[in-house]
Amino acid sequence: MRESELLEYIYRANPTLPGRVTIPPGDDMGGLQLGAEQVLITVDQLADGVHFDLGAVPLEKIARKAITRNLSDVAAMAALPCGAVVAACLPRHFGTSSAQRLFDEIRAVGGSYGCPVIGGDIAMWDHPLILSVTVLAMPAGVTPVRRDGARVGDWVCVTGGLGGSMQAIRGYIHHLDFEPRLTLARKLASTLGLTLHSMIDLSDGLGIDLRRVCEASGVSAQLWADRLPISEAAQMASSADGVEPWRHALRDGEDYELCFTVSAEQAQRCLPAQIDGVPITQVGVITPVAVASGNGKPTVTIKFPDGSTQTVGDWGWDYCG
Amino acid sequence: MRESELLEYIYRANPTLPGRVTIPPGDDMGGLQLGAEQVLITVDQLADGVHFDLGAVPLEKIARKAITRNLSDVAAMAALPCGAVVAACLPRHFGTSSAQRLFDEIRAVGGSYGCPVIGGDIAMWDHPLILSVTVLAMPAGVTPVRRDGARVGDWVCVTGGLGGSMQAIRGYIHHLDFEPRLTLARKLASTLGLTLHSMIDLSDGLGIDLRRVCEASGVSAQLWADRLPISEAAQMASSADGVEPWRHALRDGEDYELCFTVSAEQAQRCLPAQIDGVPITQVGVITPVAVASGNGKPTVTIKFPDGSTQTVGDWGWDYCG
Repeated sequence: MRESELLEYIYRANPTLPGRVTIPPGDDMGGLQLGAEQVLITVDQLADGVHFDLGAVPLEKIARKAITRNLSDVAAMAALPCGAVVAACLPRHFGTSSAQRLFDEIRAVGGSYGCPVIGGDIAMWDHPLILSVTVLAMPAGVTPVRRDGARVGDWVCVTGGLGGSMQAIRGYIHHLDFEPRLTLARKLASTLGLTLHSMIDLSDGLGIDLRRVCEASGVSAQLWADRLPISEAAQMASSADGVEPWRHALRDGEDYELCFTVSAEQAQRCLPAQIDGVPITQVGVITPVAVASGNGKPTVTIKFPDGSTQTVGDWGWDYCG
Repeated sequence: MRESELLEYIYRANPTLPGRVTIPPGDDMGGLQLGAEQVLITVDQLADGVHFDLGAVPLEKIARKAITRNLSDVAAMAALPCGAVVAACLPRHFGTSSAQRLFDEIRAVGGSYGCPVIGGDIAMWDHPLILSVTVLAMPAGVTPVRRDGARVGDWVCVTGGLGGSMQAIRGYIHHLDFEPRLTLARKLASTLGLTLHSMIDLSDGLGIDLRRVCEASGVSAQLWADRLPISEAAQMASSADGVEPWRHALRDGEDYELCFTVSAEQAQRCLPAQIDGVPITQVGVITPVAVASGNGKPTVTIKFPDGSTQTVGDWGWDYCG
């Protein structure tokens, strides 16, 4: 069983939902109309041995990642974080001072993003540390950007550089230290308006995450291998392991950058080259689902400078794979 | 380290919270003012080996409890559930059909209480099953009832019968099969209005949970041993283990009944003897914190028919104890 298959089952099997559900399961955040307001919610868990290694990573970094992963989901909706709750199962030998450091840091990091921790649940057990963080958000003056709105002809764009998130560079390790693209996402959404058709945050690698956008939207996509923005970390990883840099950019997980699609006309007219110093790069286009050559399913292909193309398979992270 | 001590540290250390936090950490739910609406949120986790035994309990019961525990928190605020998200770490050998049964049931139970599941996160690992459920709620036409409003002279009351929640009676096991007191709580709140000074749901036993109300409110309480409503299950447990029934009622965990305090005048005038067939029982009174005899700290004492009293210590469940 893969996580993605199980999630797909759960989303498919979704029974009739009440009218107040504005964004059903399957997007970066769920949405509810509560009285006069739309409220968005997301949950992410971080487990020792799955998402981090407690022996190798300072507690403060684990605490940071536990909340910034959720904030990256908030960024993907171009929304504003409002508050969080934290559930933790601590190993019995964890110790009070470690627990306090962990919670102090989650609270401090949340607070620094305007996302106070307002509740929690703590238990102890004889198994590894697991943290589950739920974040609430509200629309930030723009309609939340979903992943099911990509249209044929859209440009596919990403923020920042991709790949190598596990690689340490001068003490910076992207998957722990990344900055959730909250402000950038909101600026992008105000600039592009409703022509910002879809957005997702890159947690499992561009190949897999863009396919999710395609599946939700009923379209396919073509990426251009020579246009993928290769991060410095991906270059280093490539030098070390001999794998081409574009492969790192395509399949390494935990970029926590944004991938979005925008109408070509609007992109040509006003897509910024960068926002607050973070480059914005067109990496491909949205295409129709190929009925003849393909299997009639949404597909992501990658095109090389010599004109050849490959289908992008499961070249990414699926924690349950 | 005990769970309660760690939580106390976390609540005490709470830095300045933004103005939109209407109910800070430490109550059954946290509260946020989001635009025109107040939104309440709670998280609870359920771990194999801590809160249930996967080998001994049908999956459907685990699923049910995962969400009804949260709904009991919603009842404690006299609020209305709106939606939920679920995070799950599944043992690698769990199997697709078990996972599907689990999620189908969580969704079905949530839906039956007007609380659709609108998102989630799933991972797999080599450790026991853990489920973390977050529920959103809104005020139900009455101000959310907090645990910090108890006043000297208030009656202390509980719903239903207490104790023996692990005891099977004709196939019913209370800690798995209980009905969260959602409707009852809202009826109570409409009947008593603002004189319903405080409320909490009984998860760790009346002794411990009432002390939490006292600590939050800066008061003490006296319980009357001969007035505690003993459940049929507590009677059975008592026959089996020889422990007096009142002890079961005081210290057994997972009653998921409501404990509330109400002004004596209002209680005398209009406290119903039952709501929808569930008995309402006065079990004691709120008293001032004793400076002379006590240690100046909020205390819960229990008074026996012979006039003697005892201080209620940690006679309840504290999962991390």
